[in-house]
Amino acid sequence: MALIVQKYGGTSVGTIDRIRNVAKRIQCEREKGNQMVAVISAMGGVTDKLLGLASELSQNPAERELDVLLSSGEQQSIALLSIALNELGIPAVSVTGRQAGILTSGSHTRGRIEAIDPTLINRYLSEDKTVIVAGFQGITDQGMIHTLGRGGSDLSAIAVASAIKADVCQILTDVDGVYTADPRVVKAARKLPEISYDELLELASVGTKVMQSRSVEFAKKYGVKFEVRSSLNNNPGTIVTEEHESMESVVIRGVSIERSQARVTITGIPDTPGMSGRILGALAEAEVNIDMIVSNIAHDGRARHSFTMHTNDLGRAQVALKPVLASLDSDAAIETEAGIAKLSCVGIGMRSHSGVAAKMFASLGDAKINIGMISTSEIKISVTVQEDQIEDAAQVVHTAFGLDA
Amino acid sequence: MALIVQKYGGTSVGTIDRIRNVAKRIQCEREKGNQMVAVISAMGGVTDKLLGLASELSQNPAERELDVLLSSGEQQSIALLSIALNELGIPAVSVTGRQAGILTSGSHTRGRIEAIDPTLINRYLSEDKTVIVAGFQGITDQGMIHTLGRGGSDLSAIAVASAIKADVCQILTDVDGVYTADPRVVKAARKLPEISYDELLELASVGTKVMQSRSVEFAKKYGVKFEVRSSLNNNPGTIVTEEHESMESVVIRGVSIERSQARVTITGIPDTPGMSGRILGALAEAEVNIDMIVSNIAHDGRARHSFTMHTNDLGRAQVALKPVLASLDSDAAIETEAGIAKLSCVGIGMRSHSGVAAKMFASLGDAKINIGMISTSEIKISVTVQEDQIEDAAQVVHTAFGLDA
Repeated sequence: MALIVQKYGGTSVGTIDRIRNVAKRIQCEREKGNQMVAVISAMGGVTDKLLGLASELSQNPAERELDVLLSSGEQQSIALLSIALNELGIPAVSVTGRQAGILTSGSHTRGRIEAIDPTLINRYLSEDKTVIVAGFQGITDQGMIHTLGRGGSDLSAIAVASAIKADVCQILTDVDGVYTADPRVVKAARKLPEISYDELLELASVGTKVMQSRSVEFAKKYGVKFEVRSSLNNNPGTIVTEEHESMESVVIRGVSIERSQARVTITGIPDTPGMSGRILGALAEAEVNIDMIVSNIAHDGRARHSFTMHTNDLGRAQVALKPVLASLDSDAAIETEAGIAKLSCVGIGMRSHSGVAAKMFASLGDAKINIGMISTSEIKISVTVQEDQIEDAAQVVHTAFGLDA
Repeated sequence: MALIVQKYGGTSVGTIDRIRNVAKRIQCEREKGNQMVAVISAMGGVTDKLLGLASELSQNPAERELDVLLSSGEQQSIALLSIALNELGIPAVSVTGRQAGILTSGSHTRGRIEAIDPTLINRYLSEDKTVIVAGFQGITDQGMIHTLGRGGSDLSAIAVASAIKADVCQILTDVDGVYTADPRVVKAARKLPEISYDELLELASVGTKVMQSRSVEFAKKYGVKFEVRSSLNNNPGTIVTEEHESMESVVIRGVSIERSQARVTITGIPDTPGMSGRILGALAEAEVNIDMIVSNIAHDGRARHSFTMHTNDLGRAQVALKPVLASLDSDAAIETEAGIAKLSCVGIGMRSHSGVAAKMFASLGDAKINIGMISTSEIKISVTVQEDQIEDAAQVVHTAFGLDA
């Protein structure tokens, strides 16, 4: 007998039929003798509908009230799932974020989980009841309702699993698990049986959108092992866990790509302290999200900075940089290039294996794919290529590191 | 400056435009310098929609979960109204039943208000905020969500007004106030400036459906004076209050009618103890709601019981009574009559004025309207007449007691 926490997203509980299906999945686990806690989101579409009502009333609705409004969505879905379970003869009770003891801090619409008091959940479990917890919400120490922002229900599930010391935490979603690459791009991509928190974080940050980074970071911080699996079938998914020695034998865990990138290069920058700060500060103020940053000194002794960003941000970046460059009193100039894409290889095995970058670059060279910028971290190597070559590039590198099925 | 509690029903907040109108009404009061607390229902139709979803999942949904589900409706409307007020520049905060400190007992879907801890509402008022309270909901001492059943939002408003010692409690609804008679029946009906709790209770119980009796009883118990007025205009409504001496100068406050009534008369009942109990017990078991009861001894020494009920219950009553009569071992028989209606005169002045019944019967007699059953209480006289004469009867009595405008 295991104590299992399952998280179901808005799509999985998006209609009455789907709620009934989730109830049946939980029933299956109960019949195997497992104790069950389900953490669920609002029915798909409900949150957007409520936001639509609020925006009819105000361009800038009070955030405290948005939290009260939006948290009603999960209150409905937990009650409905609980009704469905009771109808199947499975004694079930719903608990709101408040009743689940999910204590938050931070600001409205972006609450952070500080602690969980699992007294009520544990009491219901001791009465052999199935507990349905409202994800995405909690309360402050003043009793005010908070929502947790994007990916909040995953966060709730991982935090609840940690608080009740669950044996298993399953994030049920519309993907089968974490793959070595996006199967739509790389046909030979394989589902990974396991992956470390850090690897998932690096993959998540470069386009493989399985989960929000904050949920993975929370799981890492509290050492909660969880599984990403499909809510549509019973196939095993991918276990996300602390890294262990045998993981290092795999050099590269996966390959990911990010399209629609643009590069801005500023040349002729006086090589004096504070220059980078001024340039990046201007971009931050214009809310341009910078991704890769590459900087070096050119043969003329002047600095040269390159950044990548989403193509949509390029115009805003140019506008923001113009006054900075004008103030430099030098021959600084901007070069821009849209239509590029980023390819990343991620793997903790990189730390203990040499020649990974060389192998990656060589495989791209053999395929006549030119590399633009290069950026590396401890467990990731990213390069830019022309966007029309990104799929070939992903395929070539996937094969080179022996990731093909 | 007054502290005003206003209650708005589901129709008044049924659309985004109507929510905006309610916000403007509250703004007007704020601009007069008044402090405002609004108690509101779910947007019209939301509760039914949620019940529909629940009934798709179960014929008999768990009541605990229905409370969690339905209470989400007010959580949405309070947030939306609060957003609308903030948009108008009126600082406003929403509070759920729990945050309003509404403590309940009783069973799920039929909670009773036991007490209110107004700490949070008072704190917000002291910060000069407008407070929007979710009607229809509260929590048990175990922290479980309760809804209050039909008319629950009126109850919440009256209880909150009592707890915060409001100067004024206004129940805003789709009627203008309480009338001397239904204006659709009696053209000369007048809106009453005031009425006592007991009179409203008697009128409410005989068809003038302004408010649920339990809310009026609650107001009477705690001495909360309130006003029933229209949410569509700014006309003064009807003040409902404790009776005072000057009220007694009016003999009859109002006249009300109830249509679609039927009479069952049982004749030839042995005049022995326990007979009435057996008969009424059988009807109660069959869930027949009895209204008037008239009983006397006929010239043959046998008892004769007559009851009125809604016509819809007549068939069920006959089925329920058959075995009782068969067991009596006497010549007991049932007579039934459908197509009758009930006319009632209500007024606390009746207590100190004699001849009220005589005047009522004489006016009906003059109009050639035959009286069937008669039943009286301290402040009410009811008679049955043929249903096709009920409008004439109401008109005649209304005029006889000087109620015409």
